[in-house]
Amino acid sequence: MNRKMVRYIIGSVVLLEALFLLLPALTALIYREKCLWAFLATSLICIVCGWLMRGRKKPENTTIFSMEGYTSVALCWIVMSFFGALALYLSGSFPNPVDALFEIISGFTTTGSTVMADVESAPRAVLMWRSFSHWIGGMGILVFVLAVLPSTGASSMYLMKAESPGPSVGKLVPKVRGSAKLLYLIYMFLTVVEMICLLVSGCPLFNSINLSFATAGTGGFGVLNSSAADYNAVTQWILTVFMILFGVNFNVYFLFYMKKFKDGLRSEELRTYLGIIGVSVLVIVVNIYHIYQNVGATLRHAAFQVASIITTTGFTTADFDQWPELSRTILVLLMFIGACAGSTGGGIKVMRVKIMAKTVLKELDFIIHPRNVRKIRFEGKTVEHEVLRSINVFLITYIVIFVASLLIISLDNFDGITNFTAVAATINNIGPGLNGVGATQNFAAFSNLSKLVFCFDMLAGRLEIFPMLIPAVYLAKKRAR
Amino acid sequence: MNRKMVRYIIGSVVLLEALFLLLPALTALIYREKCLWAFLATSLICIVCGWLMRGRKKPENTTIFSMEGYTSVALCWIVMSFFGALALYLSGSFPNPVDALFEIISGFTTTGSTVMADVESAPRAVLMWRSFSHWIGGMGILVFVLAVLPSTGASSMYLMKAESPGPSVGKLVPKVRGSAKLLYLIYMFLTVVEMICLLVSGCPLFNSINLSFATAGTGGFGVLNSSAADYNAVTQWILTVFMILFGVNFNVYFLFYMKKFKDGLRSEELRTYLGIIGVSVLVIVVNIYHIYQNVGATLRHAAFQVASIITTTGFTTADFDQWPELSRTILVLLMFIGACAGSTGGGIKVMRVKIMAKTVLKELDFIIHPRNVRKIRFEGKTVEHEVLRSINVFLITYIVIFVASLLIISLDNFDGITNFTAVAATINNIGPGLNGVGATQNFAAFSNLSKLVFCFDMLAGRLEIFPMLIPAVYLAKKRAR
Repeated sequence: MNRKMVRYIIGSVVLLEALFLLLPALTALIYREKCLWAFLATSLICIVCGWLMRGRKKPENTTIFSMEGYTSVALCWIVMSFFGALALYLSGSFPNPVDALFEIISGFTTTGSTVMADVESAPRAVLMWRSFSHWIGGMGILVFVLAVLPSTGASSMYLMKAESPGPSVGKLVPKVRGSAKLLYLIYMFLTVVEMICLLVSGCPLFNSINLSFATAGTGGFGVLNSSAADYNAVTQWILTVFMILFGVNFNVYFLFYMKKFKDGLRSEELRTYLGIIGVSVLVIVVNIYHIYQNVGATLRHAAFQVASIITTTGFTTADFDQWPELSRTILVLLMFIGACAGSTGGGIKVMRVKIMAKTVLKELDFIIHPRNVRKIRFEGKTVEHEVLRSINVFLITYIVIFVASLLIISLDNFDGITNFTAVAATINNIGPGLNGVGATQNFAAFSNLSKLVFCFDMLAGRLEIFPMLIPAVYLAKKRAR
Repeated sequence: MNRKMVRYIIGSVVLLEALFLLLPALTALIYREKCLWAFLATSLICIVCGWLMRGRKKPENTTIFSMEGYTSVALCWIVMSFFGALALYLSGSFPNPVDALFEIISGFTTTGSTVMADVESAPRAVLMWRSFSHWIGGMGILVFVLAVLPSTGASSMYLMKAESPGPSVGKLVPKVRGSAKLLYLIYMFLTVVEMICLLVSGCPLFNSINLSFATAGTGGFGVLNSSAADYNAVTQWILTVFMILFGVNFNVYFLFYMKKFKDGLRSEELRTYLGIIGVSVLVIVVNIYHIYQNVGATLRHAAFQVASIITTTGFTTADFDQWPELSRTILVLLMFIGACAGSTGGGIKVMRVKIMAKTVLKELDFIIHPRNVRKIRFEGKTVEHEVLRSINVFLITYIVIFVASLLIISLDNFDGITNFTAVAATINNIGPGLNGVGATQNFAAFSNLSKLVFCFDMLAGRLEIFPMLIPAVYLAKKRAR
């Protein structure tokens, strides 16, 4: 393994984090908050550590392969989270270091699960750091590194592949660096548009910035204890629309950018995604109408919650824990489907779900007509065997991690729905679950062991499982020799 | 499609059912119960209908393929269930015909979920029919037909393939008919041994017969309201041992029969199965010791419940709904793992679970060492691509059916754990779940729609999903033309 290059990459990321930490520091300065020193000190520590890890000059051999790609990505996210948690711990808002780690991993992975019952009493700098971590994590830390740092050679494809959501990384433009830059430009553009819309709708500036960061990353950390319930109807609709927009595969926006509007709108994944949202909203509206007795409010709450869950954002405007079981079940299922591949959202991804469904239909067809050997097609192209295999392996590994997590956290002896939805909410990077971790609850009551399990699940979910497993297996194998 | 041959097969099965119905009729005669006429009348109806369907002579063309195999199996089980339910309905114990259908499908599929709160007040003939249906369904109705009827030609392999549990039908002896006969001989032998053991342990004759039938089929219908809780400790231990024995792949017994003891004991699936049981019992013993305060009783309850759930039998000696969450979670997971392939038990099957686990390990290894292309091995042989594909398709289809069922039954508005474990208990052919369908509860409270969904799930689980789907898809396609 090319250790020097891995260290170089991680060092670069830590230096970048030093820069990122200046935003909450600035916030603390503006609002004259005492925790200013915590962010400045952490930033300084990041500069020193990053500089030490990175070394004076770039390694001579910059070639990396998938193993280095996965290892770098996994370590980057862990190291980032460590320093991010340090800032939160030093700020004094999180007396338990495990809580600080949980909170920042929930931020970077765009999960939005929290251990804070009262966010309104926290310093604004802390809230800004939480929301900003969503924005940083949403499009990917290494994608950012690729976009701003000098090229690390052709092999940087492995970094992007290991970090980006979805079964296949579409090459937007021939060079990885170009793709990364373009992705971030679209991402920033959408974030700024949302910020302006929110301001116009009457949302205060601080809230607008935070909400935009959290929506863009499909994170879900809010700045009010009531999440999004106390904003006006227009603000809630704006959030709904932007949540759905950030759950779309960014390839679609790239096509729009290239003025290929028809190709963009013809995307099979986009249509499936919007179809699922439409049907879910419709069924839930019929199912919960008796609660709100008003078409407008019912539609708004249904659309908001569906958009929030399927894009794995996790904002709430209504306590869906009180909804009838059919609506609750639909929301739990949406947790697993998740957003489109290549978006900032989590979950299994619409593309994988659709291809799985097609696999079953193909198999049934094969038994009826054994002579028709049909290939599975997606987005008009034949799905390669390699992709099918990776989806199957993903599904099985996902189930294994899910089950193992469920077993460990069941030691805390909470009820089954709390446990099941807590694991579902973290591994799918959503935020809230049902019952004990429902819309009005939080994760503070779990033991430190369970919180560490959730930290692993959130990282595994965001990095699509494999980067989190491979280094462990590699080390185990090495020791076994 | 060879319709004549399908009709011939179904007719034969219905004629056979007329014979089977004589056992509960005999029971009614012995105990002088009024419901005697219900069983005799149904038997007569079966003779008439079976004779009409079967026609006077065997079709000239006896060749069938997988499509006919799947269709015959699906229709046989549905028709069998219809006549079986008719007997229960006529007996007067089930005023709601849907309840009667649910109960007998639960019997034939060896599920053991019930809608009866008070089994002790039911006629003994009804109880006998319930237990006997487990025994009939356990080894398979068509396997029985193959064993007793004159050979239907070489293509009868397709029948056995469509009905037998597990990803691959091992050919025991070169001829299908020989295999079927041998399977039934081993099955009967074990059933009789259990009956004798139970009698010796002090269990009354009627209970011993019923318990043996229900254990052999890994069903779970009892004749006492307390399931197996009121039997003495020796009886409970005997049941535990026989439940585990009937969850073993019958190929192992075949090897024993051939005096290849070493080969039998070396079976990878057997070892995995016993390993899972051992570890689960150990963890549960530690977890529930504080409830019983006695090593013997704790071990007995833990072993009984683990054996009952993993083999998908569903007897209970303790209300595990009251156990701590860790134990409950383990039991729910065992529901999904299920027994060995080629046994009478349900669930996903140990073999499939093990191969899935190996798939993940192989994939991880592949990313670390891209040049090592390793094949997955099971029972010392390379697992063929075809088998891997079928397992993946099985898993995905299983999830789709599970999710669809969950959505429909959530309309009844019970809590999530009740719904989730009710679907799990029926699709895996177990019997009880947790909460509303827990060890001391039953399925009576669900709506007729939900009960019909459970009927489908039980059949899909027992027939390993595909036979239940293919005729529907076939008809849909035909209509679309």
